[in-house]
Parts: sequence; structure tokens; C-alpha cells
Amino acid sequence: MPRSKDATTDRSITSGSDFLQLNTADAPAGGLSDWLAQRLRLAVSDGRLAVGDRLPATRTLAAELRVSRGVVTEAYQRLIEDGHAVGRGRGGTVVVAAPVAAAVTAPAPARPAQGPPPEAVFTTAPAADVFDAVRAAPARIDLSPGTPDLASFPRTAWSRAERRVLGTHAAPGFGYGDPRGAPELRRAVAKWLARNRGLSAAPDEVLIVSGTAQTLGLLAQVLGRRGVREVAVEDPGSLGARQHLQYWGMRTPPVPVDADGVRVRELRASGAPAVLVTPAHQFPTGVVLGGARRRELMRWAADGGGLIIEDDYDAEHRYDRPPVPALRAMLPEHVCYAGSVSKLLAPALRTGWVVAPPELHGALVDAKRFTDLGNAVLPQLVLADLMESGELERRLRQLRKRHRARRDAMIRAIGTHLPGAAVQGAAAGLHLTITFDADFADTDLAAAALARGVKVQPLSWHRQGPGQPGLVLGYAASTATEIAEGAAVIGSVLE
Amino acid sequence: MPRSKDATTDRSITSGSDFLQLNTADAPAGGLSDWLAQRLRLAVSDGRLAVGDRLPATRTLAAELRVSRGVVTEAYQRLIEDGHAVGRGRGGTVVVAAPVAAAVTAPAPARPAQGPPPEAVFTTAPAADVFDAVRAAPARIDLSPGTPDLASFPRTAWSRAERRVLGTHAAPGFGYGDPRGAPELRRAVAKWLARNRGLSAAPDEVLIVSGTAQTLGLLAQVLGRRGVREVAVEDPGSLGARQHLQYWGMRTPPVPVDADGVRVRELRASGAPAVLVTPAHQFPTGVVLGGARRRELMRWAADGGGLIIEDDYDAEHRYDRPPVPALRAMLPEHVCYAGSVSKLLAPALRTGWVVAPPELHGALVDAKRFTDLGNAVLPQLVLADLMESGELERRLRQLRKRHRARRDAMIRAIGTHLPGAAVQGAAAGLHLTITFDADFADTDLAAAALARGVKVQPLSWHRQGPGQPGLVLGYAASTATEIAEGAAVIGSVLE
Repeated sequence: MPRSKDATTDRSITSGSDFLQLNTADAPAGGLSDWLAQRLRLAVSDGRLAVGDRLPATRTLAAELRVSRGVVTEAYQRLIEDGHAVGRGRGGTVVVAAPVAAAVTAPAPARPAQGPPPEAVFTTAPAADVFDAVRAAPARIDLSPGTPDLASFPRTAWSRAERRVLGTHAAPGFGYGDPRGAPELRRAVAKWLARNRGLSAAPDEVLIVSGTAQTLGLLAQVLGRRGVREVAVEDPGSLGARQHLQYWGMRTPPVPVDADGVRVRELRASGAPAVLVTPAHQFPTGVVLGGARRRELMRWAADGGGLIIEDDYDAEHRYDRPPVPALRAMLPEHVCYAGSVSKLLAPALRTGWVVAPPELHGALVDAKRFTDLGNAVLPQLVLADLMESGELERRLRQLRKRHRARRDAMIRAIGTHLPGAAVQGAAAGLHLTITFDADFADTDLAAAALARGVKVQPLSWHRQGPGQPGLVLGYAASTATEIAEGAAVIGSVLE
Repeated sequence: MPRSKDATTDRSITSGSDFLQLNTADAPAGGLSDWLAQRLRLAVSDGRLAVGDRLPATRTLAAELRVSRGVVTEAYQRLIEDGHAVGRGRGGTVVVAAPVAAAVTAPAPARPAQGPPPEAVFTTAPAADVFDAVRAAPARIDLSPGTPDLASFPRTAWSRAERRVLGTHAAPGFGYGDPRGAPELRRAVAKWLARNRGLSAAPDEVLIVSGTAQTLGLLAQVLGRRGVREVAVEDPGSLGARQHLQYWGMRTPPVPVDADGVRVRELRASGAPAVLVTPAHQFPTGVVLGGARRRELMRWAADGGGLIIEDDYDAEHRYDRPPVPALRAMLPEHVCYAGSVSKLLAPALRTGWVVAPPELHGALVDAKRFTDLGNAVLPQLVLADLMESGELERRLRQLRKRHRARRDAMIRAIGTHLPGAAVQGAAAGLHLTITFDADFADTDLAAAALARGVKVQPLSWHRQGPGQPGLVLGYAASTATEIAEGAAVIGSVLE
């Protein structure tokens, strides 16, 4: 036997139970039942045991405490007698007394994620938790942009794939994984990008992340460590993306967007070393980066060593136009490509990918490792299965049909109820933008719509400079009826 | 109809396919089939189409390109004739020609996560990717610490719970979620902590994260924004934890650990405003923070306003001793509690929780939001289901039996094959530590063991100061046979 510095082999030591951290060593000699009953009452009174909680089986607890079962039975009996608990036969012993100071009285978090009250969501300046506040605000109809048709999430296909994965996944695969992502998913994503986005990348160039929000955070960290302090953004452009970059210490100088997309001359003038763009379907205007503009943007990057962050957020969703190839396909050394399944399957999956310029890849892998050691493994394998089996491409085709119909329904509804509105960016994506040739605060419009149960986003949220009032309207996740009703409400508010 | 600034309603526009970004507008008049065949050959040659890839059904592609099906059939025929593809009847048309310059020839990432070659893993100073390198190193027997018995992951219970969740989860739940974590899981964790760790916290005080690695990153960000630049750590203490804190800009002054745990006098002397501790089962020594030491540590925090980061990493695993209550239970204002399911279920789930001092909670929620918008929703609901149903407590009881047997097997094997070794910290946890009363580099020992197919961690990795050579040996994930064989190999290496 080796020299042992602890009680490993000493069986005389008292033991105890994880349940309420009970330790028989604390009990007075001979008074085990009293002591146990007293500890249980204490747990009820301070809320560690809540009403409805079931006490451990007497046999289990007795074994853990290394006491006779009678001791536990008697203690439970005391609680039943003084009304703290009731015996439910095979249902066990259950706590019934309302605790004197239950856990629910514990201090609320210093800052609840609910943010401002619903009526103030749009009338106060958007704070860090503005989108949580919008989400938390009650509404009958939700026309917020950014989500696909969630009702058609392939529940059956997902759980079938998950069973397949669990049935074949080797034990070591449940340990710590590759921070770059599961090789199976990186292979599937590389194929997906080659087939669907004209982008040729090796699986080792793909980094799996928790959605594009994380991509922006990782990039900001890596660029920040290299002394970069600003990333130019499109104006109008996503408020959320801007908030993420700013949280990570980046200034976000605005670059105007016109009918051909981001204006490269102004980008050049801004002197920013990097720019975040949405070339396939600009958010929120929906314009496509024109051919001349694309070449101009790539020259900016190639000549000045600038970095283009390509957010390909909803490029797969097209209705009336040919696909737009990814910029990354043409300028791998200067374009960091970001994609995700948020618009293909569901944002709740928190899964996306980055294909970075080779010289940034290693630093991004480090950032991902020290952020969370990599995405959870099982959902990655399930997703890889759905991609390899063609399920995801099938879903995309179905989604496109449904989204197109809803898009058309929204355009009709706008024509009927908002004849003064100009529709933009409806040829693709999951949302469209309407602007009004008038002078009013679109935040008031959004607030009034919300007050009548319709959730929309004011265009001004996504603007840094001045511009026409407008709304960003998501149609993908709502039925034609909801869309029509929503437009009617907005119309009635406008009058 | 509203004024429309794009081609929304123009049906004459040419369309195209996501597949290879095909756009019929690029085709010469009348030469559609030639053009298509040529584009397909190009895709094969540059690797966007790999050998074995199946081409889209002719009907599908024809519809997407708005061309007659004959055009596509003819193009496929050309590829078959020149040997790029073969027709497989109902199996479709499949690429067979080895591409000239396939995606596999794409540049390797600037820095592969594999790190140094196996033989150099232990003999070079541990780099950022050292644990990836260890994981990647081939070995017959893996005695690395840190994982529970992975073979017994409750696959069936998990997939049953997932089906339940998918069957009842409402559509909006597939959208963006609460960055603090799903309410269901926060409730379940609050209950778990109250019952099993003597810690009373309201669900709103619980923050769901991607494991304790992420907790350290989030905390370092939040503390760094408040001007904190160092977090003291136990010495010996986890190399991984130290690496994480350092990546996020924290210095990690070492505080010695003795038989009663971390030495508070030295902590006080270090002047560090925060300290990371493992009170229930110190890593790697396995000592328990003694009663007097606990009180001294809490006085340090209460008097000087210090922050205690309590890593409760394997507190649920006890064999020969009573449970140790969490520090957080006694000093909520100064203790940030970190737990996870990595040692209860599997590290691959990347799920953990933080119960922070109220004044840090809001800032941590912001950090989590801007890191990844919160954990993926489905796995959170599955885990909540397993916790509420008692499945997790059942598993813990089973694990404890199995782990204890393996722990005993390892102690026996060490007694047989490593009689000169002193065993420490075997009363609890998933690993034990052995030290040698001799003078040699334990990294050489680990390297030699790896060369003979046995993976272990050198104790010196987890030391900042000098100390006896030793090994950290995980037993939870290996069978008694593997453990005995592993110890025999180490013994033979030592001679």
C-alpha cells in the first residue's frame, strides 16, 4: 500500500449526503432523528427545500448518512406531524409548508435582462439589452426582422438525426472537443459553402462558432489585440452588429449605403482599416452590392490591406433574382466570411461559421478556445448529419416557397394599408423595409404599433445619420393573416 | 401597388441556382447546355464539386435556372461522356473524376490546432493549444484528469428528453433566447444548487454559460473593465484555468496550497483583489479547504472587499468524506460560484452556471450577451428535463459507485507498480495526484509514458513554483484493466 496523505482507506470516517449537505458528525450523540428533523425544518424555512419538493427515499438518505433507516423515517414523521411535510405513499414524502423565507425572496439580479417597460422600449435610446426588451415586450403579432419561419423547424428530422448521432458517437467524443468545431461539421459546412455560396474552403479553414454575433466578438478581440480600434459599418446598418462591435471596444464609423450598396469612396475617406458589409442583401435596405462597387471594394482591400468582414446573413433566401457569389470566393486574403444557421434553421441553435483570411485563422481559433473551448459537440454532429443528408437543402427550398408567399402577402398588405410607403429590399431575405416621404419619428410609430399589439423595428434604430422615417418588417415568421392584420394596425396608427 | 425600388414584381428577370451560383444571364445565346457543362467541369476542377458529390436532380436544377430539363440532361450527358461524372440511375449523376485542384489543396490554416508533434507535447513549454495537442496525441490508455465516465453518458435518457422537448417547444422558442439562459434551466439549476450544494439562489441570479472556461473569460472581461489586472490562483493549481485568465489579460500570482488548502496569509500579502479557488477538492492536490482556513478566506474577502471565484468543479464526487458546503452559501456578496455539467454528464455539452455577487450579475449578463447571445436553447431544455425528472441525481449515484471502484483500482495499481509514490486527494473527485520523493522532470516521465501509449499529465504543468515531481491521474473514464495496465507502464518507465 502506498503512503497515503488522506483518509482514502479509513472506513471509520463519518459520511454525509449531498442533499442539504448533511453531515452526521454535526449530530449530538444519540439525537440523530431530532437533529435530522431540525435540519430539514431549517431547509424548509430558508427555502432550500421548496413546497412540492420531494424528500429523498428513506433508504437512500439512510445509506448516504450511514444511519439506520429508522432514524430517517422518524425524522420524516416529525416533519409530517408538525405540518412541514405530508406522506404520499409511493409518492414519497413531500414538503407542504410555505417556507418562511423562501429562495424566491433572494435579491433580484442587479440588472434584470427585461430592461425598460414595454411602453418605453422604443421611446428610450436603445441600450445594451434593447433586443431582450423587445423580445420580452408582449405583442399579438411579431413582425421583427431576423428569424425564418420557426413553426416549420424540422423537429422530426432533428430528433431522428440526434438519435443516429447518439447511437454511433464513441465515448471519447463526449469529452472536450476541438475548439475549431467537430471535423464532421467543418467538412459539411465546407461542402455547403462550395455548393451553395461558390466558396471553396478546406474543412481546416472553417471555424465553427456560436452564430455571427460571436464572430463579431472574436474578430473584435483579435483585431483589438493588433491595435485596430475601428470597424466601419454600413449606414443604415444593423444596430445589433454595431452594439456588438462597440461592446468589444471598436468605434463604428458609418459609411453611407446607396442603391449600389456601400459607398467605397466614403469608406476610403474614413480611413478605417476594416469594414463590416452585407453584400448579398444589405441590412436593412436590401440592396445588392453592384458589380462595379464590388470591384471597387475589393480594390480598397487589396491595395490598402483593408479587411472586409462579409456578413452573409440571409444570402440563401432569394425570390426574384440570381444568386450573388460571396466576396470571400474572390479575395480570400482580405475577406473574413461569416455565415450561420440562424436564418436557415433557427437562431436558438446558436451555430455559425467563419472562413477567415489564413493569417487571422490561428488567432481566431485561440479566441474561440479561450471564449468557450468550442461549441457543444452533439448539436454540431446533428447539424452535419442534416447537411450531408440533403435535409437542409430540402428545407431551404421549402422555406423559399413559403417565405416568398409571405413576402408577397406583405407587399400586398402594404399596398392596401400603407399606400404612401416605399418598399425596399423585397427581392430576397426575410424582411423588407418601408420608408415614408414624411417627417415624423418612426420610433413613435413603432411604439404606437406595439401598444396595439404589433411588434416592428423603427428604421432609425439602424441609422447613425439622418434619413427618412421607416420600418423594418420581418415577414418570414408570420402567417399571411398576421401580416395583413399587422399592416392594417400600422396603417390605422399612421392616420 | 406601392412604389417599388427593386425588381420585386418583375417576372422577366433571369434567375439562377444557389448550386455553384449558376446564373443563366452569363450564358451565350443558344449555348445553354455547353455553358452549363463547362461551368460544371470548372467546379470539378477547382474542387467546388468533389468526387462522390451528387449533382442536383435535372428537374430541380432546370426549374431553378428556368431552363428546359433537356438543357440540364444534355449538360450532364457531356460530363458523363468526358469522364467527369457517371449516371447511377435512381442514384442520380455523381462526380467521379479526380479534380485537378481540389479544395483539399487549399492552404492549411495558419496555425493547426494539433500543435506540436506527440513526442514534443510534454517536452516543449505548454502553449495556448497544449490541451488540444494532448487530446490529439494518439494513446492506448488515457489517464488525463478532468472527465467522468463518458461511456455511461445517458444516451437514451438524453434522446428521450430531447423528443419530449421538441414535442412541446413552442415555435417562438426557436428564435433568439434569453442571454441569461432558458428560464426552465435556471429554475432547475437553482433547485439543484439548493438541494445538492447547500446554496440558495433565485433562478434570476443564475446565469447559464458554456462551462467554467467561459465563466473565467466573462469574469476576466468584467473585472478588466473595472481596472482589475490580476487574479491570484492556487499553486499548485489548474494550468488551464491560468491560461484562460492570462488570455483575458489577467496576471495570475501564485498562492501556495498546503494540507488545509490555499494559504490566506500569502493571499493577503499578494495584494491581489480576487482569487480563484477550488475549496471542495483542490485541483490538483485534492485537499479540502479546512474550517479555520475557510473562515480566514471569508474574512479576507469581507474585510478587504476581495472577490472569491469558487470553482466547484467536481464537488459532487465524494467517496470517503462528508460533503463540503459551497463558500457562496455563506458569503453571497463576495463569492462568485461557478459550476458545470462537465464532470456530471460530459464536457462536450459545454454547459455550466454562474451565481455571481449581485453587483456583478448585470455586467456578466452583458458580457454573455455580447459573447454569444446566450447558450443554444434545445440542450438547455433537455438538461432541465433531466434535472427536474431526477435523472441527473440518479446518474450521480451510479457514477459515484463506478468512480469509487475505479479510484480503488488505481490506488491498488499504484501500490503494486509505483510503491514509491505518495497518493494525494483520492477521497473525492475524478483524479488523484501522485508525487515522488526524488529529483527528476515529471514532463520526461509523461513523455515516456505517452511514447508507450499511456496519457497522463505532469504535476509540474500545474505548478508555478518548484515542487516534487509527480503525475495527475484521471481514473473516472478508464476501466480497472486500463488503469492497472497504465500504472504498470508508468512503473516500467520509472525503472
